[in-house]
Amino acid sequence: MQNAAIIIIGNEILSGRTLDKNSNFICKRCSMLGIKVSEVKIIQDDIDNIINSSLEYSKNYNHVFVTGGIGPTHDDITSEAIAKAFGRKYIINKRAKNILIEHYKKSNLKLNESRLKMAKIPSGARLILNPVSSAPGYKIKNLWVMAGVPKIMQSMFLSYVEPRLKKERSFSIREIIVHKPEGDIAHLALELQKKYKELDVGSYPFYKPPNVGTNIIIRGKNQLLLDKAKEFFHKLLKKNSIVFS
Amino acid sequence: MQNAAIIIIGNEILSGRTLDKNSNFICKRCSMLGIKVSEVKIIQDDIDNIINSSLEYSKNYNHVFVTGGIGPTHDDITSEAIAKAFGRKYIINKRAKNILIEHYKKSNLKLNESRLKMAKIPSGARLILNPVSSAPGYKIKNLWVMAGVPKIMQSMFLSYVEPRLKKERSFSIREIIVHKPEGDIAHLALELQKKYKELDVGSYPFYKPPNVGTNIIIRGKNQLLLDKAKEFFHKLLKKNSIVFS
Repeated sequence: MQNAAIIIIGNEILSGRTLDKNSNFICKRCSMLGIKVSEVKIIQDDIDNIINSSLEYSKNYNHVFVTGGIGPTHDDITSEAIAKAFGRKYIINKRAKNILIEHYKKSNLKLNESRLKMAKIPSGARLILNPVSSAPGYKIKNLWVMAGVPKIMQSMFLSYVEPRLKKERSFSIREIIVHKPEGDIAHLALELQKKYKELDVGSYPFYKPPNVGTNIIIRGKNQLLLDKAKEFFHKLLKKNSIVFS
Repeated sequence: MQNAAIIIIGNEILSGRTLDKNSNFICKRCSMLGIKVSEVKIIQDDIDNIINSSLEYSKNYNHVFVTGGIGPTHDDITSEAIAKAFGRKYIINKRAKNILIEHYKKSNLKLNESRLKMAKIPSGARLILNPVSSAPGYKIKNLWVMAGVPKIMQSMFLSYVEPRLKKERSFSIREIIVHKPEGDIAHLALELQKKYKELDVGSYPFYKPPNVGTNIIIRGKNQLLLDKAKEFFHKLLKKNSIVFS
């Protein structure tokens, strides 16, 4: 099974000003594609941090999704850092430059020096097209480098990245909402996990009084086994006169 | 200046099922307290991952905030892992047990074996009280270990953790909303950053057509300098006939 990790780059996330939604979007899409996201890191706009995290994740995971820091301003240093990390030149990509020229010809905006910086990427990288605002991301080694603005990142991911990821048999889940606090049914969840070792049983309490209860999520790839496990858990709950839905 | 890092533990975040809001809450509070959050990691409910991340962050940062995995079910393994990481025993804490006994006496719920697990924490840890559902978190070394449910985590943080963090002179910001895309004003943002090297100038584009523009955030501790920098940037924008608010 393929695995992945995510690097979110941006001081505005770490200052609490911006809520990161990119990692959640990528995690969801990966779940649907059967790719397991094993770790997410949110790091500063800092050359050394970006180099270290990129190299570490590139070595340990099949895919690394990177978002943020590829815009036109002075604090956008992701591409420079990634070029350094992989010993590439940080230079104007001709195709990227042409894309920008075409885009700004049609708009009432100028392709100035700042914007031209968005065509500067590590040498040898392949472009990830951007249907929203044209300035591309890129793939280098097993890293997919995308914009930080959620709307743009999502359009890059859906239109370009996702079709190139090998779809594996994806995980399915069965969810049982139990109208009892987690502590009342922990022993039953454990019994379920012990009986179905190939499946992953997760227990997620919710606490919104007067609604207090637990979501039990059974996760796995074998539909038949998932159905069996769900049925088994239903029986367990009924035997203990516990209400569920 | 004190720095901090955050570890969010939970498979449900990495599967995309749950959007992590805990790190954003902690980042915001830390900004207000003048503590710099340098990194966030979201990791699986996995003993080795928790051990490695805890040790790494504990060594490198003044404070480490950990959320998730301290509940009553079989997939809650944070406390066991942290005990191992710091060479402590993983045992029943008497005070925590008494808190649970008192709490469940008053409720119509039983303090069963699963729930008693919530009193099992690393030896020598100090309890972090939980005003919502009583089961405590704890502090060990420079780690603050809290619940994963946002409502509970927030109550622990605000009522117990925050009053014990040393408040430093906190960062202030000045925000200028520029009604131009980032690429049009990147050179001006750079000019601002070069003139005020002690301050941190961030550029954050927003893209919600027909509203397209850039938030320029100036961050620092010196109020007078911030005001001066803002005034300087206003002048720059006016000189270039750029609309802002």
